[in-house]
Amino acid sequence: MKVEELAAKFTPTEVLKTDTQTKSVVILGTVDGENAICSLEKTAFSISEVGDALLSKLVDGIQLINDNDVYLWSMAALVQDLEKSPGAKVNFIHPASETHIRKYRSQAHHWVAETPEVYRKIVRPFIDTQKGDRIQWVYNILFKGKESETFIHHDTDPQDGYVLLPDMKWDRSTLEALYLVTIVNRTDISSVRDIDGSHVDFLMRVRDNIKQVVSEKYLVAEDQLRLFVHYQPSYYHFHIHVVNINHPGLGAGINAGKAILLDDVIDNVRMVYDYYQRRTMYYQLGGNHKLWEKLEELKELCC
Amino acid sequence: MKVEELAAKFTPTEVLKTDTQTKSVVILGTVDGENAICSLEKTAFSISEVGDALLSKLVDGIQLINDNDVYLWSMAALVQDLEKSPGAKVNFIHPASETHIRKYRSQAHHWVAETPEVYRKIVRPFIDTQKGDRIQWVYNILFKGKESETFIHHDTDPQDGYVLLPDMKWDRSTLEALYLVTIVNRTDISSVRDIDGSHVDFLMRVRDNIKQVVSEKYLVAEDQLRLFVHYQPSYYHFHIHVVNINHPGLGAGINAGKAILLDDVIDNVRMVYDYYQRRTMYYQLGGNHKLWEKLEELKELCC
Repeated sequence: MKVEELAAKFTPTEVLKTDTQTKSVVILGTVDGENAICSLEKTAFSISEVGDALLSKLVDGIQLINDNDVYLWSMAALVQDLEKSPGAKVNFIHPASETHIRKYRSQAHHWVAETPEVYRKIVRPFIDTQKGDRIQWVYNILFKGKESETFIHHDTDPQDGYVLLPDMKWDRSTLEALYLVTIVNRTDISSVRDIDGSHVDFLMRVRDNIKQVVSEKYLVAEDQLRLFVHYQPSYYHFHIHVVNINHPGLGAGINAGKAILLDDVIDNVRMVYDYYQRRTMYYQLGGNHKLWEKLEELKELCC
Repeated sequence: MKVEELAAKFTPTEVLKTDTQTKSVVILGTVDGENAICSLEKTAFSISEVGDALLSKLVDGIQLINDNDVYLWSMAALVQDLEKSPGAKVNFIHPASETHIRKYRSQAHHWVAETPEVYRKIVRPFIDTQKGDRIQWVYNILFKGKESETFIHHDTDPQDGYVLLPDMKWDRSTLEALYLVTIVNRTDISSVRDIDGSHVDFLMRVRDNIKQVVSEKYLVAEDQLRLFVHYQPSYYHFHIHVVNINHPGLGAGINAGKAILLDDVIDNVRMVYDYYQRRTMYYQLGGNHKLWEKLEELKELCC
């Protein structure tokens, strides 16, 4: 079906998500009786040099709202052109499955206090169900050369080695938005909960090595890299996120309550050997997350 | 000067900042020989019900880019109207001072490893220069009733009390973007570096009290609040940020490497009494920050 026809036939049934920060919206609808998802996101200003910043090239009509002293607020209509400066990206998924819909529907997040006991009773057993086939794709990368054409660095040592490769979220060219991921070869660390003082040397070697490799390859200074892990991570094989500290927007992925600095991990287990076994871990968790369901069941059992 | 005239006379000289996530740009220019700053930010989609999501109300022309299986990507021109659905907010500062310009100009961020020794030699003396007159406005709020018409909660106990009030960044109506700040009455805590095991009871009381007050007043569940402090903070009198966990975008203010969860602060000093005196603190710092200059001087002295 042509995109013009798809857009004309699209009948909205539910607004799945609106984001006032990124100026985007995701709409569920139907096309010929089948579910379809349409997401719209406004385009960024395309200004690469000062000549592009002439207001007559950007604005087509302007109207005062208010002013005070040296400050003045107004609203404007924008210059746009479907070929050269379109106003929005518009993506469709058609037909859309229930999984697609669940993925895009807004979910309330909850604040979790995971004590060592909750970890042992609920989270660890949950993690065990997320291994095997579910992380086969990780083993394919590490041990079967999958995606090897994208590897930035590959150290095959089974204990200390790792693969460094671009994250899916990176366009592989905008240096300011640099986003890489390091997947370690060793298979015995599911998450930061498994890290203790015995890993200090390993983590420091990996950290220093990543910083050196990345700063040499991408001309980003070592002190402009931010290295962190997630808890909960999206897959339970130890990996480290590597981003430019000036990255303009990482969303929830860099939030305190989701991201933990690798530097903090190392220093914490240097100070207290079993820090991550003893600590209550605090984090945000989406209401759609399978682990949230398990934690809710526990609450009902105990309170 | 009328806004139409200001826009027409504005001659761009430098693009101070572009943000591809929020779809905004800040431009330095001149108007009649004086500096002026013009910032443009695209408007969010204004969709409050499913009827607003009809594509014919949103899109005025669409063009295919690519497709694959059930996925289809396209670009579109947007319906816009200066009165009813303007494309952008446009703000001017005219005439603009050097301070205005410095504030808006992009700055590179750096990753700082602040050892206890660096804290003692550089950071603590810097903090001492930031007290007195510079935080008089805080004392005006706490002890002189300034802004008291906005107080959400006020406990006047000199040791345990605090003021809870809306943060400037909050529009005071959008619950999802709820942003409050708690300023404690006691004046002996400049930052998290001053927190130790003696503060556990105090911090737990304040935390539990904030959660109760906020969840009662705003109908946000206690487990949907995120409480955190900043290091470095923007002013050196202990205060706690209180936000909705579903806040769509807090920028760098919620990043690991800037924000520290209040829950983590409490648990860390419960585990290790002098945790924040012994730890190396890792954080991002803007290249324009006065503290960064001091840290750079130290580097030159010692290396």
